Amino acid sequence: MTNADALPFHDVEFRVRYAETDQMGVVYHTNYLIWCEVGRTDFIRARGMSYADIERAGIGLAVSELTCRFHGAARYDDLIRVRTTLAEVRSRGITFDYVVTRAADGGKLVTARTALVSIDRNGRPVALPPGVRGLFEPG
Amino acid sequence: MTNADALPFHDVEFRVRYAETDQMGVVYHTNYLIWCEVGRTDFIRARGMSYADIERAGIGLAVSELTCRFHGAARYDDLIRVRTTLAEVRSRGITFDYVVTRAADGGKLVTARTALVSIDRNGRPVALPPGVRGLFEPG
Amino acid sequence: MTNADALPFHDVEFRVRYAETDQMGVVYHTNYLIWCEVGRTDFIRARGMSYADIERAGIGLAVSELTCRFHGAARYDDLIRVRTTLAEVRSRGITFDYVVTRAADGGKLVTARTALVSIDRNGRPVALPPGVRGLFEPG
Amino acid sequence: MTNADALPFHDVEFRVRYAETDQMGVVYHTNYLIWCEVGRTDFIRARGMSYADIERAGIGLAVSELTCRFHGAARYDDLIRVRTTLAEVRSRGITFDYVVTRAADGGKLVTARTALVSIDRNGRPVALPPGVRGLFEPG
Repeated sequence: MTNADALPFHDVEFRVRYAETDQMGVVYHTNYLIWCEVGRTDFIRARGMSYADIERAGIGLAVSELTCRFHGAARYDDLIRVRTTLAEVRSRGITFDYVVTRAADGGKLVTARTALVSIDRNGRPVALPPGVRGLFEPG
Repeated sequence: MTNADALPFHDVEFRVRYAETDQMGVVYHTNYLIWCEVGRTDFIRARGMSYADIERAGIGLAVSELTCRFHGAARYDDLIRVRTTLAEVRSRGITFDYVVTRAADGGKLVTARTALVSIDRNGRPVALPPGVRGLFEPG
Repeated sequence: MTNADALPFHDVEFRVRYAETDQMGVVYHTNYLIWCEVGRTDFIRARGMSYADIERAGIGLAVSELTCRFHGAARYDDLIRVRTTLAEVRSRGITFDYVVTRAADGGKLVTARTALVSIDRNGRPVALPPGVRGLFEPG
Repeated sequence: MTNADALPFHDVEFRVRYAETDQMGVVYHTNYLIWCEVGRTDFIRARGMSYADIERAGIGLAVSELTCRFHGAARYDDLIRVRTTLAEVRSRGITFDYVVTRAADGGKLVTARTALVSIDRNGRPVALPPGVRGLFEPG
């Protein structure tokens, strides 16, 4: 398949769960990073393959580096939007950028970047198979 | 408001997150109970008031009892449906039933019940305010 | 091995993590059930085998039923004690009881019971192997 | 109090919980960051004040930036050691470094840094009170 028309980013929306808050009354900070993973899962599905299928084919994408800045705080029941952008495709990995906003007013909450490495079933780094790499390349 | 037409149950759907799986390859069991809370949040919103608003009005709904049976296992990326049903309204609390299914084939995963008690800002049991109780009664 | 001297219960202690609180200012309710699992892991290790070893031998113990009552609320940084008691051993499963208390004053927070079924690598119910069953029987 | 003898780092140890694993068979990546918070909570307590007390005095420490590198994977039941080191104290915040290792063999799992800003009850940045700042300064 080609991705000639593939957008360079993908948006997903969902509401903040009560379990995701902490006693400061806002979302506990590591939950934003779980949301980033929801964002990249949905990005990959939008390219035509689910990450679940990639794993069934024997390839995992493991986070190797992560940077994150916290600009604002999400609250329980807020509608959240995660915009996931493909930053880089390498022979053995992919890097994504994320912007997490409050959907109601576009308020910026978190910006983050994760570098992922492709690994085999034994956790060893391997080249991205062409079928997977193709999902992330211009057609 | 009246709820003459209010359905006795409410459905919400979402996908399983990677973070919710465990090394058995299925969803870790306590996550189903977080999903039940997503279900009752959405049930309450469908009745015309968000649980966030109820808390802002000074009333919390705290889980006092919980029973749960596990019938099947959800997997990463499965589309999940939580059906929340109002089981009972008491002067100081509400009981909900839940059926969690795999949306693709209707496979039953979990059935659960939670009893909630209404508490004030200091954690003391109080009667449900009429405005809140009204949400759960036939019109 | 024999367990002639095995205590019928086992205690484990740890502190409440910030991530475990919610915006009510107390521990989010499903976290108590994660603590119960910490309790049974430690119970099993005290009997002479780690649950990790049991899984490596091809047997999983999956929660099939769970009941829980919430009596009081734990707060961030509280020292928590989980007392795990063996309630029943069946050919295909084990049932544990738990009492979660605040260590400082013994205040009762949660009582719970979980029934576990033994499953093979494909998730099918199987008899507990004698070596595992023996861990839970009087010597 | 003075901290003339205060060590520049602090270690805490605990075991990996089953709930912290994912279907790759290792610890889900955001859990290491929850462990870092366990590390800094324990670091602060070792300096003579609990973070719970700091919050009761009206000051919160919110994560504003986070960087993290993943070097190896922790598994269920591994004994984990988090070494927390004070990196910098500023008028309105503190930065900590973390090294997460497997205690059995010292294998390095994660290195991370978090910048925290001090905020008041309304979430506004404020100067660290002298009593709190003193905890982190040489005597």
